Amino acid sequence: MITSPHNEKLKEIRKLGSRRERDRTGLFCAEGEDLVDAATAAGAEARFVLRAGEDVEPELLDAVSALGSGTRVIGVFEQRWSSPGGALSMFLQGVRDPGNVGTVIRAAHALGDGPVVLGPECADPYSPKAVRASMGSIFARPPARGTLDELAGTRIALDPGAAIELREVEASSPIVVCLGAEREGIASEVAESVDVSARIGMRPEAPDSLNVAMVATVALYELGHRMAGHG
Amino acid sequence: MITSPHNEKLKEIRKLGSRRERDRTGLFCAEGEDLVDAATAAGAEARFVLRAGEDVEPELLDAVSALGSGTRVIGVFEQRWSSPGGALSMFLQGVRDPGNVGTVIRAAHALGDGPVVLGPECADPYSPKAVRASMGSIFARPPARGTLDELAGTRIALDPGAAIELREVEASSPIVVCLGAEREGIASEVAESVDVSARIGMRPEAPDSLNVAMVATVALYELGHRMAGHG
Repeated sequence: MITSPHNEKLKEIRKLGSRRERDRTGLFCAEGEDLVDAATAAGAEARFVLRAGEDVEPELLDAVSALGSGTRVIGVFEQRWSSPGGALSMFLQGVRDPGNVGTVIRAAHALGDGPVVLGPECADPYSPKAVRASMGSIFARPPARGTLDELAGTRIALDPGAAIELREVEASSPIVVCLGAEREGIASEVAESVDVSARIGMRPEAPDSLNVAMVATVALYELGHRMAGHG
Repeated sequence: MITSPHNEKLKEIRKLGSRRERDRTGLFCAEGEDLVDAATAAGAEARFVLRAGEDVEPELLDAVSALGSGTRVIGVFEQRWSSPGGALSMFLQGVRDPGNVGTVIRAAHALGDGPVVLGPECADPYSPKAVRASMGSIFARPPARGTLDELAGTRIALDPGAAIELREVEASSPIVVCLGAEREGIASEVAESVDVSARIGMRPEAPDSLNVAMVATVALYELGHRMAGHG
């Protein structure tokens, strides 16, 4: 039972709160039973796992938690990265909110068959908030890294200003759905190298934009069902 | 120019960080240019607005912000509540995460035509995180309060364990989409009083659940397009 805040494992967990340390070590933390269970289900082996009251005093685990008090378990894992691929995948560029990155990873796991490819200026998918938002899909479907020109397939950019609706787009697989920054939208270099730009069809009096994670989810749902022959 | 942290307006903003104060006064704060602009666009008049560097010293505004530093403007507004209605609306019960409540309010604004009806044990839609997540839709489409038995129409519960997919459900308008708690799912009293339960169709190897806000968005997209005759 760890009873000292100077314990090396606790120090390591605390340090992994910073992106620099995660990049340097290739490790990250998953907090909570659900995430540690998701790791096991996906065959990801922990470097170590600390359980409150079993391996460590609860207050000490709380003190190194990145997500707040009441944490009962924290595991340290190796980051895994996929290669881009699949019949339906997603490319993100400039998505800086870690919660959005994690949610898109969840959506791609549920509704697509390829990994989320993280382009320039995205949040770290292994940050605590992104890992939590992925609801464990970070283990089952690790993200990839790359640039748009490395990706094969029909590239569809989602852009609220596009003239046509995604529903009207005819595309053959493999399809790469491209999404840009929360505020700035699709970067011009991305817009120039896609095959088509489309918007999510909304009501006439609708707002001019949706959250990135919602757009990703709807797009994967729409295209995934169509590809599966339900459309 | 406000130069004292003891200023009454600053004190009021700070107090409105608590649900108790929001419930007592019927007021709430909107932080950031985008939200204050959304209020203006929706015709919501502010009790008062404080702008950093114009009305108040920037550090003092930062100190009362509920969302972190760098806030340039905070407005105080009256809470508004809609009556339930519309051809396509959403009922939430036990959705305790304010970000999810706000995101669903955004989704309903974009993809539905009725307000989000908040049933028992939901997060306060006027909390800072919910207001931010609504991206201003809290002004354009204020939420309603109620219980499921007060709502008219075809009630469709979204439940990952349901036998049929939402895509297969035939329903006539008005439709009320019902969603339950993040973890516990649909409450049994809700499940008993809906007309049909359905799940979002996912891939065979998909995870067993999606985030509440994603489920709501996909459901509104699916049903909204079908009702508009696109389906």
